[in-house]
Amino acid sequence: MISERLKKQMQFIAEADKIKNVFRMTKIHDGSRRENDAEHSWHLALMAFLLSEHSKEADIDLLKVIKMCIIHDLVEIDAGDTFCYDAVGNMDKLEREKKAAKRLFGMLPEDQGKEMVALWEEFDAMETKEAKYAAALDRVQPVMLNYLNQGGTWLEHQITKDRVVKRNKPIDEGAPALWEYASGLIDEAAAKGYVKEAGS
Amino acid sequence: MISERLKKQMQFIAEADKIKNVFRMTKIHDGSRRENDAEHSWHLALMAFLLSEHSKEADIDLLKVIKMCIIHDLVEIDAGDTFCYDAVGNMDKLEREKKAAKRLFGMLPEDQGKEMVALWEEFDAMETKEAKYAAALDRVQPVMLNYLNQGGTWLEHQITKDRVVKRNKPIDEGAPALWEYASGLIDEAAAKGYVKEAGS
Repeated sequence: MISERLKKQMQFIAEADKIKNVFRMTKIHDGSRRENDAEHSWHLALMAFLLSEHSKEADIDLLKVIKMCIIHDLVEIDAGDTFCYDAVGNMDKLEREKKAAKRLFGMLPEDQGKEMVALWEEFDAMETKEAKYAAALDRVQPVMLNYLNQGGTWLEHQITKDRVVKRNKPIDEGAPALWEYASGLIDEAAAKGYVKEAGS
Repeated sequence: MISERLKKQMQFIAEADKIKNVFRMTKIHDGSRRENDAEHSWHLALMAFLLSEHSKEADIDLLKVIKMCIIHDLVEIDAGDTFCYDAVGNMDKLEREKKAAKRLFGMLPEDQGKEMVALWEEFDAMETKEAKYAAALDRVQPVMLNYLNQGGTWLEHQITKDRVVKRNKPIDEGAPALWEYASGLIDEAAAKGYVKEAGS
């Protein structure tokens, strides 16, 4: 007999497959297509353990960071991806995502649903050392991809360098070495014409 | 100054993006397209922590399991995906993948490269409790997807039920409850015509 608990877990895991159809603005390295949330989350998880020595604060709970990376975009199954430079879309983002979290994580056994909601809220608040480090990864990754695909999102949506810097500066709070890396990439991108200076 | 160590790490993380272009035989839940290795690995990592209570052996190192899930298919960037029912392709699979592991993980700082190779070899050998549990997840996930998309790979490649059962029986060694779940799905799939009986 399959337990009710396992049934709920597997129904959630099946529902989670829908994240593979949620596409982000960022394109993959070769610029051939947009990246989806499952791929993005996988990439963050890989980065989380390879780059943990660069976390600003030591002794982070790496398992918690990776869980955050894996689940942080699940709410977009219902709420959709909100482009980080879309001011209007970001106004009701939290409300849409809270509703999504309630439905989606509510499919799980109660204890696990609560853990997922707590992880998602912790990630979103960017206050704990784990959340700051995870948020840094979540920003470094698209900077890297936009550099690799020669300015994809930045050129397509005319996002100027000052906005890219402003958006990504919080990397410094989670992982200063990664901010040094990312800001260097942004400078190189500007030099190569992958991102335009404001007013240029 | 960006350290040589961080440069190597980021070069590897950029190279890893190529896994998003490695497509598996299995299609996603709605059957609309094939799943890629990044998405598949993400799904396993999610399953790893939600289903850990079903691991046959208790006290598993969950962080290690998740790392295995995240990195187990990276070698396919060079070696390509080998369909699990392809007897010829599986003859030289290990050789191709070993060469890939050497090149890819060799891009990392030496200590991290060694850790990645060790994780990949441990996963592949299916001997430790963590590897058995991870291998179980690696099999349950495509069974679930093939059920959800109404028999995709099984019907397309005329894989009969006995072969599906044989391929997936090792789930029992890593997570008996998940084998009960998967074998139930396979039975349901047969009843619905998503997988054919041998000789039918």
